[in-house]
Amino acid sequence: MKRIAESSVRRLSLYLRYLEDFERLGRATISSDELAQCGGTTSSQVRKDLSLFGSFGKRGLGYAVPDLATRLRAILGVGREWRVIIVGAGKIGTALAQYQGFRQHGFKLVGLFDVDPERIGQKWAGVTVRDMERFERDLRRLRPHIAVVTVPADAAQAVIDRVSNAGIKAVLNFAPAGVQARDDVTVRNVNMALELEVLSYALIHGA
Amino acid sequence: MKRIAESSVRRLSLYLRYLEDFERLGRATISSDELAQCGGTTSSQVRKDLSLFGSFGKRGLGYAVPDLATRLRAILGVGREWRVIIVGAGKIGTALAQYQGFRQHGFKLVGLFDVDPERIGQKWAGVTVRDMERFERDLRRLRPHIAVVTVPADAAQAVIDRVSNAGIKAVLNFAPAGVQARDDVTVRNVNMALELEVLSYALIHGA
Repeated sequence: MKRIAESSVRRLSLYLRYLEDFERLGRATISSDELAQCGGTTSSQVRKDLSLFGSFGKRGLGYAVPDLATRLRAILGVGREWRVIIVGAGKIGTALAQYQGFRQHGFKLVGLFDVDPERIGQKWAGVTVRDMERFERDLRRLRPHIAVVTVPADAAQAVIDRVSNAGIKAVLNFAPAGVQARDDVTVRNVNMALELEVLSYALIHGA
Repeated sequence: MKRIAESSVRRLSLYLRYLEDFERLGRATISSDELAQCGGTTSSQVRKDLSLFGSFGKRGLGYAVPDLATRLRAILGVGREWRVIIVGAGKIGTALAQYQGFRQHGFKLVGLFDVDPERIGQKWAGVTVRDMERFERDLRRLRPHIAVVTVPADAAQAVIDRVSNAGIKAVLNFAPAGVQARDDVTVRNVNMALELEVLSYALIHGA
């Protein structure tokens, strides 16, 4: 399968959200127009996105909802179980630990880590906060696929280095810092300050 | 000032993070190489980004740190006070309400809203959760610039419609839904499930 653009992956993920809604409603088929409307895009974009993975739809009949949902889940790796650790058990880290959406999407929290003695030993969503001192040792047993990093900015790079060295290939970084990682590690950055500054820029200079 | 790409705005925001670190360390100048290294980009990209706002650097001397920081703050609207409301006082909403980074960047939480009677009246970060029933009336007094939306997916569009109709021009949407807004409203989407699916896609298909 050829490498597709991240923007397409994001749209596929959105389409899947809606297909699952339609599945629950018992709908058998959906048109590219309907999917486009849900995803805030055009029907030709929908057809283009889905054609990257072969032609699923039937002209005039639309897409078979359960079939398309199953295929999108396989493409996106949904339905697999991904083992996730969270590094940083502060406000954002513990809110994410309790986030229902994680489990709903097959992301299983297997570990929580912090350096703060007051946080170590606390339990969130059934998972006990571990000491970063034992990080590498614990990871060999926890075998996580994904690390969610919610540490302060000045600690982020060191954590991401340790995560990468431990063999984790996917990182969701919430630390407000521009971190670097090896080419074989995918890092997604979620940066509140940055998102807010994009908004304030838009407010000043016109949307 | 011409409209610049969002990716440039995001990098400017990152450069500002580092300039502020250098300011605290008392550094007088910084080279485009150093800024590039911090931001995980190239020095020619740094010079290109900064040239969009006029030429700040001196050949061989680099950029004057306090001067460049001041200009970037003005460009990004940092240092202004932005009035922010959060709609949805669940786990993510209340974690954000307590998020220090908001205040540090001039984003002042002026209101929290929910529909759940158990949440209404609770106090987070000194702000009492208000009833959505009184949303439009309260907004006239609160006069927010930015709405952070942390409601469930199926409530998101209706909330964003009410927010837009109330005259708010900037929205940070955490609801896992593809929402639509009028052209004069800037919406930034932060979608955990989506970010995680981009990661799981990368894990399956290679980074």
